[in-house]
Amino acid sequence: MAQDKKMVKEITSMDEDFAKWYTDICKKADLIDYSSVKGCMIIRPYGYAIWENMQSILDKRFKEKGHENVYMPMFIPESLLQKEKDHVAGFAPEVAWVTHGGSERLTERLCVRPTSETLFCEHFANIIHSYRDLPKLYNQWCSVVRWEKTTRPFLRSREFLWQEGHTMHATAEEAEAETVQQLNEYADFFENDLAIPVIKGRKTESDKFAGAEATYAIEALMHDGKALQAATSHYFGDGFAKAFNITYTDRDNKVAYPHQTSWGCTTRMIGAIIMSHGDDNGLVLPPAVAPIQVVILPVAQHKEGVLEKANELKDRLSGIVRVKLDDSDNSAGWKFSEYEMKGVPVRLEIGPRDIENNVCVLVTRHNREKTVVSLDNLEQAVMQKLEEVRAGIYQKAYENREKRTYKCLTLDEIKAAISENGDGFVKAMWCGEEACEDKVKEETGVGSRCIPLVQDVIGDKCVCCGKEAKHEVLWAIAY
Amino acid sequence: MAQDKKMVKEITSMDEDFAKWYTDICKKADLIDYSSVKGCMIIRPYGYAIWENMQSILDKRFKEKGHENVYMPMFIPESLLQKEKDHVAGFAPEVAWVTHGGSERLTERLCVRPTSETLFCEHFANIIHSYRDLPKLYNQWCSVVRWEKTTRPFLRSREFLWQEGHTMHATAEEAEAETVQQLNEYADFFENDLAIPVIKGRKTESDKFAGAEATYAIEALMHDGKALQAATSHYFGDGFAKAFNITYTDRDNKVAYPHQTSWGCTTRMIGAIIMSHGDDNGLVLPPAVAPIQVVILPVAQHKEGVLEKANELKDRLSGIVRVKLDDSDNSAGWKFSEYEMKGVPVRLEIGPRDIENNVCVLVTRHNREKTVVSLDNLEQAVMQKLEEVRAGIYQKAYENREKRTYKCLTLDEIKAAISENGDGFVKAMWCGEEACEDKVKEETGVGSRCIPLVQDVIGDKCVCCGKEAKHEVLWAIAY
Repeated sequence: MAQDKKMVKEITSMDEDFAKWYTDICKKADLIDYSSVKGCMIIRPYGYAIWENMQSILDKRFKEKGHENVYMPMFIPESLLQKEKDHVAGFAPEVAWVTHGGSERLTERLCVRPTSETLFCEHFANIIHSYRDLPKLYNQWCSVVRWEKTTRPFLRSREFLWQEGHTMHATAEEAEAETVQQLNEYADFFENDLAIPVIKGRKTESDKFAGAEATYAIEALMHDGKALQAATSHYFGDGFAKAFNITYTDRDNKVAYPHQTSWGCTTRMIGAIIMSHGDDNGLVLPPAVAPIQVVILPVAQHKEGVLEKANELKDRLSGIVRVKLDDSDNSAGWKFSEYEMKGVPVRLEIGPRDIENNVCVLVTRHNREKTVVSLDNLEQAVMQKLEEVRAGIYQKAYENREKRTYKCLTLDEIKAAISENGDGFVKAMWCGEEACEDKVKEETGVGSRCIPLVQDVIGDKCVCCGKEAKHEVLWAIAY
Repeated sequence: MAQDKKMVKEITSMDEDFAKWYTDICKKADLIDYSSVKGCMIIRPYGYAIWENMQSILDKRFKEKGHENVYMPMFIPESLLQKEKDHVAGFAPEVAWVTHGGSERLTERLCVRPTSETLFCEHFANIIHSYRDLPKLYNQWCSVVRWEKTTRPFLRSREFLWQEGHTMHATAEEAEAETVQQLNEYADFFENDLAIPVIKGRKTESDKFAGAEATYAIEALMHDGKALQAATSHYFGDGFAKAFNITYTDRDNKVAYPHQTSWGCTTRMIGAIIMSHGDDNGLVLPPAVAPIQVVILPVAQHKEGVLEKANELKDRLSGIVRVKLDDSDNSAGWKFSEYEMKGVPVRLEIGPRDIENNVCVLVTRHNREKTVVSLDNLEQAVMQKLEEVRAGIYQKAYENREKRTYKCLTLDEIKAAISENGDGFVKAMWCGEEACEDKVKEETGVGSRCIPLVQDVIGDKCVCCGKEAKHEVLWAIAY
């Protein structure tokens, strides 16, 4: 059976080639596989279990705020997509078109949904009549398709999984409050559950979602200094309502247009985890979404009592955490590296001498720290270690971001900061003119990511033209 | 505000027009809405919540048997679909074809998955190498598309939601056992959770899934005497494995083909619930999947103490059942008919006099029976009522099926049974020849549904040709 023994997996180091390191982890931690469908990926059980944990946490958060799940068709007739002009202009170039059903040519082309505002609006027009029908707080978990030219697993693929919230409100104020509330939900989920620090901000005019009045986003900085837009929340005003003729009778018996939002996050969040927390030994998973939170590895498992004890510990932990006991006949070395590759937050080792001493060893994935703990307090010790991992990886990501955040007053300072310290977040003032926004990108390579909601006023002049500044802007090269 | 008061909804009676009664319920119980996408439906929050409850129960069952969830691309390249010849012949006529991405024509057409055997097989070929990689027990929750000509909500639509299990095993025996195990899971789910009696059987050769060696199904009889195929489980042998060149090295170091299964159930199950349990007042939901299991309706809610008590009861019940308190200002009459339409299994009424007497009234949806119960034992009383609903609607559906099951020895007996008693299940013997199967359908209108696993041998001659019979067959007109 020797030829069948599994080999320790190796991956490219992140300093050598970050992009290759990333795809190595995607493949070797068994998150994805490629298929013959170009630009689409297979999400394997370990990757999908991460997504299921994300879904479960977010779905609960959304429902607690009164949102209900629905399911819309995956196809959008061309004429429906065209109803809101900014929207169609933004999406038409990147949709997949269905032209035939069986052997028959369709009388009207259907696109596979790139997002579902148009379908929701058509439905809202049917079901909203009175102020009593508002608000409508809907969400949908589904897959969407955008025909991207260059693709990377999780970060940019032609098909991806996401949730899209779509809500309708009686007033602009209510809709704006919803937009911000959901942005805050995402930020909270990232900071607390994924242990990734984020900056909340508003997109500039040129970067808004097609058809939105305002687009908000959370931005995270990856280990290599590039930015990742992690989730977005849009305020639409009544633009779509007018285009789709959605009206309601208000309390004063007058006909009015409702105000709209949409907000979404995607499987790209798995990419954010990899690039925020991963290291040269593989994935490092935040405990909240780790499919396995604790892996039990018996030491000298052939010796009497070891497997029994390991099973006993598994039973004790299984009501509290997601625990796996690996009692396979793979070598200890292989197991250590396998569960490090898979980013399991806590490893529990138990062998004959530990049993004698009524202890076990807990090893935290992110820093490989070993702690001997008494079996009497195992549950508390494990929970504490999981919290240490969460706090530890957050701190590490936070420090990386702070180290790579540059406050710059001129274009030359931006260029210097990046060439000396590598990619990162640039904080710089802006006059609000699109010409300056474009010029910063052209000259320095960093594009505007957002206007942070919490403004860190670092000067009073535009970094580009030197005229009076209106906003502090966060700039970066983005995924 | 008078013009805004909600009106009591009315539906067509089932005896008058069963098909219209069905679509009335779909619309008026807020399960679905139509969209401009022909043949596709919008699943509204109340309908989707039923699906979520089904998913949650089934997903748990599947995982307990070791299955893992994955996600495959929604597109299948034409060449991949063509790899297994029976499969492509079965599905190609009814798929939707994507021919363009953005403004560019694709070099190869992609179909939107009608089912994912081909994608799973391509992936299995990549990841199965050794007997140690087997079994692979995968499942996927997703939507699929089949370009049907005539459609009806839940029963037959161009896009529908489903789960598709795909498994690979070292031996034929293991794969066959998996096929039967999953058939039994479905049957158990139907009988216990959906309260719908089913008959387990094997499809005849002409009715097998495209590419399968054997197809098993569960068949239920709807209120109108038509049959509904409720879930299927397929055994593939190694046919796909050979077509896709999936091999593994067995324990004796020989190269072998693995054996395969797939099994699925869909949103059609919601249609089965409507047509098994519904009545002229609307939907009747089995408690296991009802979004609201108990609705609390305060009587004279403006009187002192009523809403406080109603809220107190809601709090008491909310850890145990899915409970809703409707304290809106809609009339009592409207509320009664609304929650009957929505099929809420148990209604709890509480008014001033009840509070004085420390009681409340429980009304079970399926028989409108009222019971006064002491508030001291509310939790037990509610649980007992929910079980009464489950048992009661099962019994009703069972009796309907038994009443409409006809044992027939000749074609004339079949015709007579149906014309005298209406549509139903026909039990009749069959010689095994396709010509006889076709002739029964031609002459009597009923097609073969399945060869029941538990054979009720009612004769020894084929109902059609009179030659020696091989099987008892279940026949019916099907949805």
